[in-house]
Amino acid sequence: MGVRVAVAGASGYAGGELLRLLAGHPEFELIAATAHSQAGQHVTSAHPQLTGLDLTFSSTDAAALNGADLVFLALPHGQSAAVAAQLPQTVKVVDLGADFRLESAEQWTRYYGGGHAGTWTYGLPELPGARAAIAASSRVANTGCYAATIILALAPLIAAGVADPQDVVVVAASGTSGAGRNAKVHLLGSEIMGDLSPYKVGAHQHVAEIKQATGAASLSMTPILAPMPRGILATVTAKRLNGGDPREALQAAYADEPFIHVLPEGVWPHTAATSGSNSCHLQATVDVDSGRIIVVSALDNLGKGAAGQAAQNANIMFGLPETAGLSVFGVAP
Amino acid sequence: MGVRVAVAGASGYAGGELLRLLAGHPEFELIAATAHSQAGQHVTSAHPQLTGLDLTFSSTDAAALNGADLVFLALPHGQSAAVAAQLPQTVKVVDLGADFRLESAEQWTRYYGGGHAGTWTYGLPELPGARAAIAASSRVANTGCYAATIILALAPLIAAGVADPQDVVVVAASGTSGAGRNAKVHLLGSEIMGDLSPYKVGAHQHVAEIKQATGAASLSMTPILAPMPRGILATVTAKRLNGGDPREALQAAYADEPFIHVLPEGVWPHTAATSGSNSCHLQATVDVDSGRIIVVSALDNLGKGAAGQAAQNANIMFGLPETAGLSVFGVAP
Amino acid sequence: MGVRVAVAGASGYAGGELLRLLAGHPEFELIAATAHSQAGQHVTSAHPQLTGLDLTFSSTDAAALNGADLVFLALPHGQSAAVAAQLPQTVKVVDLGADFRLESAEQWTRYYGGGHAGTWTYGLPELPGARAAIAASSRVANTGCYAATIILALAPLIAAGVADPQDVVVVAASGTSGAGRNAKVHLLGSEIMGDLSPYKVGAHQHVAEIKQATGAASLSMTPILAPMPRGILATVTAKRLNGGDPREALQAAYADEPFIHVLPEGVWPHTAATSGSNSCHLQATVDVDSGRIIVVSALDNLGKGAAGQAAQNANIMFGLPETAGLSVFGVAP
Amino acid sequence: MGVRVAVAGASGYAGGELLRLLAGHPEFELIAATAHSQAGQHVTSAHPQLTGLDLTFSSTDAAALNGADLVFLALPHGQSAAVAAQLPQTVKVVDLGADFRLESAEQWTRYYGGGHAGTWTYGLPELPGARAAIAASSRVANTGCYAATIILALAPLIAAGVADPQDVVVVAASGTSGAGRNAKVHLLGSEIMGDLSPYKVGAHQHVAEIKQATGAASLSMTPILAPMPRGILATVTAKRLNGGDPREALQAAYADEPFIHVLPEGVWPHTAATSGSNSCHLQATVDVDSGRIIVVSALDNLGKGAAGQAAQNANIMFGLPETAGLSVFGVAP
Repeated sequence: MGVRVAVAGASGYAGGELLRLLAGHPEFELIAATAHSQAGQHVTSAHPQLTGLDLTFSSTDAAALNGADLVFLALPHGQSAAVAAQLPQTVKVVDLGADFRLESAEQWTRYYGGGHAGTWTYGLPELPGARAAIAASSRVANTGCYAATIILALAPLIAAGVADPQDVVVVAASGTSGAGRNAKVHLLGSEIMGDLSPYKVGAHQHVAEIKQATGAASLSMTPILAPMPRGILATVTAKRLNGGDPREALQAAYADEPFIHVLPEGVWPHTAATSGSNSCHLQATVDVDSGRIIVVSALDNLGKGAAGQAAQNANIMFGLPETAGLSVFGVAP
Repeated sequence: MGVRVAVAGASGYAGGELLRLLAGHPEFELIAATAHSQAGQHVTSAHPQLTGLDLTFSSTDAAALNGADLVFLALPHGQSAAVAAQLPQTVKVVDLGADFRLESAEQWTRYYGGGHAGTWTYGLPELPGARAAIAASSRVANTGCYAATIILALAPLIAAGVADPQDVVVVAASGTSGAGRNAKVHLLGSEIMGDLSPYKVGAHQHVAEIKQATGAASLSMTPILAPMPRGILATVTAKRLNGGDPREALQAAYADEPFIHVLPEGVWPHTAATSGSNSCHLQATVDVDSGRIIVVSALDNLGKGAAGQAAQNANIMFGLPETAGLSVFGVAP
Repeated sequence: MGVRVAVAGASGYAGGELLRLLAGHPEFELIAATAHSQAGQHVTSAHPQLTGLDLTFSSTDAAALNGADLVFLALPHGQSAAVAAQLPQTVKVVDLGADFRLESAEQWTRYYGGGHAGTWTYGLPELPGARAAIAASSRVANTGCYAATIILALAPLIAAGVADPQDVVVVAASGTSGAGRNAKVHLLGSEIMGDLSPYKVGAHQHVAEIKQATGAASLSMTPILAPMPRGILATVTAKRLNGGDPREALQAAYADEPFIHVLPEGVWPHTAATSGSNSCHLQATVDVDSGRIIVVSALDNLGKGAAGQAAQNANIMFGLPETAGLSVFGVAP
Repeated sequence: MGVRVAVAGASGYAGGELLRLLAGHPEFELIAATAHSQAGQHVTSAHPQLTGLDLTFSSTDAAALNGADLVFLALPHGQSAAVAAQLPQTVKVVDLGADFRLESAEQWTRYYGGGHAGTWTYGLPELPGARAAIAASSRVANTGCYAATIILALAPLIAAGVADPQDVVVVAASGTSGAGRNAKVHLLGSEIMGDLSPYKVGAHQHVAEIKQATGAASLSMTPILAPMPRGILATVTAKRLNGGDPREALQAAYADEPFIHVLPEGVWPHTAATSGSNSCHLQATVDVDSGRIIVVSALDNLGKGAAGQAAQNANIMFGLPETAGLSVFGVAP
């Protein structure tokens, strides 16, 4: 018999992608999907792409999650703690929200405001030592979507002494699903198509977890909203140290990883190539004139940046093959 | 041991989607992918979304296809016959091209020009009697992408006497991958984005197979190129006969179909909801004032319109579960 | 001294386009722009493309419109009558809303509900006799955006006896700005990009004014939302009568029109080619097999479909050159 | 009588935009448009948005340009010198290509290869002293499109001592028209939509002119191709010097400029807001944590980045109002 799984907060984009992955997972059995304001409606009212899936939203309460061996929380930031508190420790939980990512309460308050709920195991399996920690945890905090993209590009370079942690500059563009399924004028198709625009310049909340996970000490980050539904492309540049080779550092770090691909030399990532997958594509070069390393990282913000990563973490927590129910390949064009 | 599979003409969009599906298929083992001008290159040079797949293009010749139990032909129109002639009858073949779809040599010459190569079993499993014919065939001709979309909407209505075969009007819009991977100025992103434009107005070659498969006698078709990579949305209207109910006719025809979904009343199809899947979404209504039936049909031109349909046909030909390696669910947003 | 102009309801998309046109108009002097909920804010808070224009939103009341010689109403449907009632007859008014378009109170109630406000001069200058009527009016009702696109394609064919008014089928796709600037989930960029979907199938409110303006007796209309910010492409098909030539009929009707262009034979319209302009591009053919005429019409829903048409009407009302402040040329790619 | 104007190389995207601007210019009279391979065809065969303009492409030779007072060269890089050599000095010339931008023959050879054609007046009027130089020149070299975007953001900060010229990092994304109208597979709509991808990482040829115009000594640049037809968004970051205020430096530099707009504090640029205009929108902040300045700059690559800038330069060269025939306002949404 399979692992019984519930998703709390399943009406958003990450929730919908999670339902898609779980519906096709060989070991996970989807028993409940909750949605605050859509309880009682069929999941296809929010997710027409799931037509054929027989499931109705429940309200987000303990009763709905009762009986699950595994609960994914895809709730708005700040709402995970209250739900998690109702779940016994025997139930394994992966939180796609930010509530339990940060170790520092001070950083939490600075970027999110309010009280710090606590710290769970940080759920990026490709970080050194992370797999064992995730496997041993019943509570795992998924990373932010930008954070996953940038950490995967940066962490090995700082660890290998190739990039200067005092001098990191990041510009990262995200598809609109990263902004959530909120009825806001600035997210309308009419406003988005044909437009690029930055936001939270130098002030994005993911900076805190990127620094925490990579050891970067100074990091300037400019997020950009891009006219496409999915995908993040992060350009990470840092002062080069010790004449190091950034491609070698990336290749060494990810040689055995099923989802992290350092592309052939000279081939640069395309976000579209990762769409619908749990893969991250990386390429790096040295800009000799400026003495900087440039790494570009691409992934699907709803895949490796959210739902795919969550399923990968759950696979590890249950001792399943890490790729179960996940695709290495993107859906393109 | 699995079925050994080769894809001839694998560098285009349908070929790439087919490789993706085959790489994830539980019973098919991908042994070769051919590409005329890219022989010797890794498949990721054409299909970066397949990063992680270890496969190199061969040239399109008998040697490359030798040893396959199943060959998919994803060649330009007119090139299938020559390749098929080299394959023994014990090798099963699904042709994604147009060469063997039409029964009438006259119609072939009118719409495609040149000599008619012959007629294979028409590969739309949801047509009455089609499954048995496909299962018994070693040569199956996939339908056109517009044809699949429109036939699925129209065939049951004519068969049930609800729609007048003498008075059918179709307007169907396709994403750009339907126009192929050809380096043409009018297909550049700069030209496509923000633009809708008709083409082959009243003269599209799929009209012939739609009439053949549905019994429509008079059918006006206007194809439109739409600013999205995938998806076809067909609006099929016909004079209503006998006060018939088009939704009932569709529901009766597709009640047991895994991939064909008549949506809940009042819910209209979205192409995005079918993206990456092998599903077709349908809805119908009666326009009382004009006395016409309006059916709208949506599918992924590379999925149920091409590669997905081809894999479904192959599943039937090999006696496998029809849904093996195929997704009912779309990747959205 | 120029004509003093005010725009009521200037925070939406049609309002913004109207401000852009008026700011560049040689004879109109923009003195006020009202916006219900944004009074006191600079117009660039809603319309960043107008950066450089020194204008602040007023609240929508008589005081704000006082002193104007010409008032454009770009209000939500149903709100025009109350504002218009406050304006003296000496002030000329162009209403971009639906309130005064229909002659039939019954049709109004059927499609819009509530009481019928009345009937103003229908503001499509290219209809026979329309220019003189518009020039003599102090109250003009702009057409709907779909209506303009479809009427321009259909009216000359019915008038010339080429198209059967008893058998008209229309499928028309619109960019998202046609759906207005409303914060609704189904209009989010994430939902729109990559998607085509029909709505109000067989039930669109513009059918009433299209029938009224063209004499069509039976007309089935399927509207489609398309993934682009601007533009409407209408495919209008009708049973052909008397072996008539639809291109000749269109050319005869529009030979002297500055904004209506029948394209060279075989060249079909592109919505992108009309973007930002007040032009409508037309092409027609006869589908011999089905005995139907197919006309395709493209325009910018915010241009000739709304703000451009409104400015053209105003030019006529004030005896100015009809093209003043308007562009024949689109902004493409 | 107006200035007689010819455009050499008018079939590309910049050429088409230039024809649009010239057709609406109050003082320039368009007498010829040349296109190597399309001579004899109507300009609307390449530019359907110019329907209504009565002009046919000539071949690109001296005869076609004869009689012009002003010639714009919109030719592929490397072809301007030969054409310019045939024009008498009394004919004023604006070159939209790269041939005459660089002062250093060494830099030319490094980035473009081949022999250096020479150096003309660098045509960015907003640079200190540039207007007078342009006004006095009969030969002006337009800037690159990325170059314009980045120089406008960076030059005042280096000049004011606010940004460290030794430490500049730029990531800039461009719409696809910036890649030209070349029939290449990687520019197809199917590949572009839904995709972000970098190219020429750390190796873009515009770096040379940016350094030349701003005094930047070390500059790392990553260009990105974005899924939209027009627009460039450049994120320019530099180490902050002397506790300087980047907004003040920008405001001081551009206070009297009609086309350069420093947005209200906290409002960040949108490329869509500049579409079709000759404007550039700027915003800046200090990222206190990293000690870096972040400036974001947006413009239309075909407007201020190419054709608009060229027309502005020509206005200056002929002593016309600098804004003649140009729009400050964008066409959005």
